[in-house]
Amino acid sequence: MDIAAAMDRAISASREAMGISSPNPPVGAVILAADGTVAGIGATRPPGGPHAEVMALRAAGEAARGGTAIVTLEPCNHTGRTGPCAQALVEAGVAEVHYAVSDPNPVAAGGADTLRAAGVRVTGGVAAHDAENGPLRPWLTRQRLGRPHVTAKIASGIDGRIAAPDGTSQWITGPRARDHAHSQRARIDAIVIGTGTALADNPTLTARTADGTLYPHQPARVVLGHRDLPADARLREPVGGPLIQVDSHDPADVLAALPDALWVLVEGGPSILGAFFAAGLVDEVDAYVAPLVLGAGRSSVEIPGVTTLDGGLRFSTRSVTRLGEDILVTLARPSTTSRDN
Amino acid sequence: MDIAAAMDRAISASREAMGISSPNPPVGAVILAADGTVAGIGATRPPGGPHAEVMALRAAGEAARGGTAIVTLEPCNHTGRTGPCAQALVEAGVAEVHYAVSDPNPVAAGGADTLRAAGVRVTGGVAAHDAENGPLRPWLTRQRLGRPHVTAKIASGIDGRIAAPDGTSQWITGPRARDHAHSQRARIDAIVIGTGTALADNPTLTARTADGTLYPHQPARVVLGHRDLPADARLREPVGGPLIQVDSHDPADVLAALPDALWVLVEGGPSILGAFFAAGLVDEVDAYVAPLVLGAGRSSVEIPGVTTLDGGLRFSTRSVTRLGEDILVTLARPSTTSRDN
Repeated sequence: MDIAAAMDRAISASREAMGISSPNPPVGAVILAADGTVAGIGATRPPGGPHAEVMALRAAGEAARGGTAIVTLEPCNHTGRTGPCAQALVEAGVAEVHYAVSDPNPVAAGGADTLRAAGVRVTGGVAAHDAENGPLRPWLTRQRLGRPHVTAKIASGIDGRIAAPDGTSQWITGPRARDHAHSQRARIDAIVIGTGTALADNPTLTARTADGTLYPHQPARVVLGHRDLPADARLREPVGGPLIQVDSHDPADVLAALPDALWVLVEGGPSILGAFFAAGLVDEVDAYVAPLVLGAGRSSVEIPGVTTLDGGLRFSTRSVTRLGEDILVTLARPSTTSRDN
Repeated sequence: MDIAAAMDRAISASREAMGISSPNPPVGAVILAADGTVAGIGATRPPGGPHAEVMALRAAGEAARGGTAIVTLEPCNHTGRTGPCAQALVEAGVAEVHYAVSDPNPVAAGGADTLRAAGVRVTGGVAAHDAENGPLRPWLTRQRLGRPHVTAKIASGIDGRIAAPDGTSQWITGPRARDHAHSQRARIDAIVIGTGTALADNPTLTARTADGTLYPHQPARVVLGHRDLPADARLREPVGGPLIQVDSHDPADVLAALPDALWVLVEGGPSILGAFFAAGLVDEVDAYVAPLVLGAGRSSVEIPGVTTLDGGLRFSTRSVTRLGEDILVTLARPSTTSRDN
């Protein structure tokens, strides 16, 4: 297998670590034996567990000697709860290391130098764009901005309405869009909703497969606002991730309450979404759009004080995906996709 | 060239006749010489002018003898302002005719029988789905329902807003989306807007290319409502199609005022669109969606009396197209796309 294909495999492997690895980055690693065959694949385990390189080295065993390691992030140089991965690669006798993204964290950086000092050939920046805009993006946002990566989730008709005037909203989108949204929940650290939505919809905010099975990883469920939840709220049931109530409407307070979170999904309602947009705290938008014209009811986002078109928030279209009859439009901050254009 | 490829060419040719041929169907025809080479291509000329078959036969000349005609609609059997096309094909000595859609119009139908009676080999239903859902669709709607095909056009942010609270809406979508919308105007018979939109935006409602040049075909400009336009309204300028004022808010009155129109584009505002949706008079939706979150302002469609989700109007997603940073989502009535699913 060539390096590019191995990096694709490493990125795919790292996707499985999303949500699970937090607050550590979800990294993927592939070890190729000296003859170029795949000897081991690994991804970051939960905090305290082995990093991706160690998992891949364990799978490879002696086949790693004289082989090549392909890693989505520069191997760490840091002894925390686990030893430094750079050292583990040296001890396993790996001859070459190719990584995608340099570690921006000063505590962990320097792995490439350690490897080179030990005589390993090192190449950085391999498929860096794919890795940066893939599973590592939330972690990179946290490194750069000191807060989680925030995705605003919208599910609406083509006219932007998320519910009828009587509040009915089940189901605007179809089963494939809902399954996709649940698989997204299984990769994030926290879902944020307002008390209004919690009281109106009485959701569980769990991540479930199509047949109702809970995904192994469940995000924290964050409810934002001054009102308390009723004793029989489904959010109080002992399923899903931890319930966190934040007695504030300030998005900054919510993010501060999630110090270990890499990726947060804000699911509504319109005022909560509007507060995140207005605060400049939305990095991405996942808009599930159904072929439905509702013609009345609340729109997906409400931002107080917007009077003119210049007051709107412009994003860049990252991707458009058909999901049965619905479509998923993913928007990103213009700067993060500038290289796509 | 084989029959399928020739039918593709005929459909493409017919697209150029859209808007121009009304109230006649925009038909395309290709004549293959006896050796299979393309001898002539034609499309329907304006009313009183030759039909597609005659245009293609003129281009082919003697090469049509013993050749094959490929036509998007069953050749007409009717002597109106022009002679019957079936007879013209027989006289030209065409040996085979392949057509896509049977003529549902009892006055013009029977062409296939006339051809067969003259010894021509005739095959109907060739690529009928493509032709029915392509340039012939508006005309087929008129044949079936006795009214024009109606497309609702929306240009909004991802939150469904079409303007900021102060009315500013230029430009929500980008240049590629606007060019696309103008090329659409060049194929339709009439644009419909409400007086509110006419007064607020003072539009010209012309079909222009990117450099501002008027397209050869300009749709009628229909303004709906009780208020009159000011003397200096740009709609009163002598450019573009005829100005038609309809002193009513009833969509049925608008369509009745357009007896020759095959295809009408309703461009807004939200109440006018809502009235067409509520009356069940929308066959298609062209939604241009920009990566913009406005957060305030009117939504694209307002339907009075919708209270619950069941009151919404559900369509089927026909296509999704990237237009620069914007996307065009085309929706159709569920039944018309059922064969796609």
